[in-house]
Amino acid sequence: MTDKVSVLVAGSWGTAIASVLAENQHDVMLWTRSERQAAEINVEHRNRRFLGDVELPPHVRATASMEEALRDASAVIVVAPSAAMREVARQMRPFLQKDTVLVHATKGFETAGLRRMSTVLAEELPHYDADSIVVLSGPSHAEEVITQCPTTVVVASADPQAAEKAQDLLINTYFRVYTNPDMIGVEVGGALKNIIALGAGLSDGLGFGDNAKAALLTRGLAEISRLGTAMGGNPLTFSGLAGVGDLVVTCTSKHSRNWRAGYMLAQGNSLETVLEQMGMVVEGVRTTQAACILSQKYDISMPIADELYAVLFEGKSPRTAVEDLMGRGRTHEIEEVAKQVQTKWFG
Amino acid sequence: MTDKVSVLVAGSWGTAIASVLAENQHDVMLWTRSERQAAEINVEHRNRRFLGDVELPPHVRATASMEEALRDASAVIVVAPSAAMREVARQMRPFLQKDTVLVHATKGFETAGLRRMSTVLAEELPHYDADSIVVLSGPSHAEEVITQCPTTVVVASADPQAAEKAQDLLINTYFRVYTNPDMIGVEVGGALKNIIALGAGLSDGLGFGDNAKAALLTRGLAEISRLGTAMGGNPLTFSGLAGVGDLVVTCTSKHSRNWRAGYMLAQGNSLETVLEQMGMVVEGVRTTQAACILSQKYDISMPIADELYAVLFEGKSPRTAVEDLMGRGRTHEIEEVAKQVQTKWFG
Repeated sequence: MTDKVSVLVAGSWGTAIASVLAENQHDVMLWTRSERQAAEINVEHRNRRFLGDVELPPHVRATASMEEALRDASAVIVVAPSAAMREVARQMRPFLQKDTVLVHATKGFETAGLRRMSTVLAEELPHYDADSIVVLSGPSHAEEVITQCPTTVVVASADPQAAEKAQDLLINTYFRVYTNPDMIGVEVGGALKNIIALGAGLSDGLGFGDNAKAALLTRGLAEISRLGTAMGGNPLTFSGLAGVGDLVVTCTSKHSRNWRAGYMLAQGNSLETVLEQMGMVVEGVRTTQAACILSQKYDISMPIADELYAVLFEGKSPRTAVEDLMGRGRTHEIEEVAKQVQTKWFG
Repeated sequence: MTDKVSVLVAGSWGTAIASVLAENQHDVMLWTRSERQAAEINVEHRNRRFLGDVELPPHVRATASMEEALRDASAVIVVAPSAAMREVARQMRPFLQKDTVLVHATKGFETAGLRRMSTVLAEELPHYDADSIVVLSGPSHAEEVITQCPTTVVVASADPQAAEKAQDLLINTYFRVYTNPDMIGVEVGGALKNIIALGAGLSDGLGFGDNAKAALLTRGLAEISRLGTAMGGNPLTFSGLAGVGDLVVTCTSKHSRNWRAGYMLAQGNSLETVLEQMGMVVEGVRTTQAACILSQKYDISMPIADELYAVLFEGKSPRTAVEDLMGRGRTHEIEEVAKQVQTKWFG
């Protein structure tokens, strides 16, 4: 089976997904705003800005024309930064066909309206069936997917058939794809883990050690589960690949840019300097803003997000923030964890 | 408040706990079988075999006499290897007083009868109130506790007052102690995570990358939760410090000896060579045996433990084992995760 599958845009994760699709013998088209980047991919089979000298398969092609990208595509996978999702969706509107499988793999919220990415897509693509939108998430550093390291991900959709179509397109021996009906949980887990990764980078940058990072990650998972469940996600999702799996890889891998941003902040760099030096979007920064507003809206305690917000936007020292998180009073663990569980999901 | 607190035995974790107690101004006594080790601690303030040249506080003293160790102790913390727990308990029997707080911090099962450590203690100390036994667990590498890196742990007991007494003795600014009423869950989580750490070491030793390790860890957490819940633990415990927290630190830290053993196995070393070179107990090896028997007894699927068993004891190649784990068929994630949850805990 050969399908035309288009991937928008040609960042590191988009290009990695394109390489999986190419390995599966699909006809792959990367869409990018940049004519020059498209030419680099088509002529040199490289995407130097995001993937250095890694060679892409020859049948990964690129275009700067949305019309060309979407024409006769069986599936479209959108991997735009969260801040660009609405604009990309608007550009897709005239060309996206109803029977195209629509997948997104973006981890963040729209900051302005605190919307999940699938909501942004549904709003901008009113002719498309919103229930058929699929999200792809899980512990999957692009650098490792490109080099065919074994990787497992989740595809979630309200429409099981749409999820299975996405699974069929992507699954192979090194890229294992599981389905999950919990669209909300998968989207929220993927977005919020970037906050905890920033915090883990802070903790590591301060030299606090692996014990402290594990504690932060444990409490971070509880925060993610609490907010995610309040927003309608299934708590089981947060125990899975899109929850704890993605959280672990983002907090402990050298490839994680959110972790790296936190690490640089802990070393005394300003947020502006960090974002400038990274040269890529650091989703966790915007997500921290969104999470703090969401935590108030849903009346959920999110101490890690609150401390991160204070560091990022209010000049609080990273050391004081991490110490404040660690130094919370004596308490009963099980009560803290229990807050994350909503009985409606069980029993 | 100054109490006499004794710690048995003087391995790396026992010595680290002793250093916390000493920091808290308690009168600390380490018990060790070795007169020479006791002298090294008393005279040189060093425990070279386990902690190299790290200097211990001067008021950490050591003895090879169990009678001296337990005399007038307010609390006793047992940190024997799981295989030695029963023998140490037998030696304690004549000297342990009923009103002494009894804590253990050992992560494993007794292989022969598949008993938890608190059960072994209760059997050998019939005059002591079994419900008052406390377990200490959580993400806490000894090397970092000794150097006062921020660390969080859990103390669990059927008797909340006993847990709170242990908490009072241990808590300080860098060693945060939470209570949890779920003795079984905390003990089982602490034991089983060592199996997953061996698997993570295998995966890393084979160069499979961070995505693969995160997947292994996610599925490992589900295995731990399934068996732990079947054995009577509260599933919430496995989302906490003694579950996911300890699992993460053991699978990702350079200090983890179980991870290191797996890493060496992946490089082609035999189990005998690995255990010899480690020079310390690798609890995960025995725990793998125990878990495979327990999984049959409780009819719980534990594919990671099964594959580890095949590598450790049946000569299966590490590469084939990890590939077999990664290559499991298409499936629905939420169903897999759901198996771990017992409705009796919710609702």
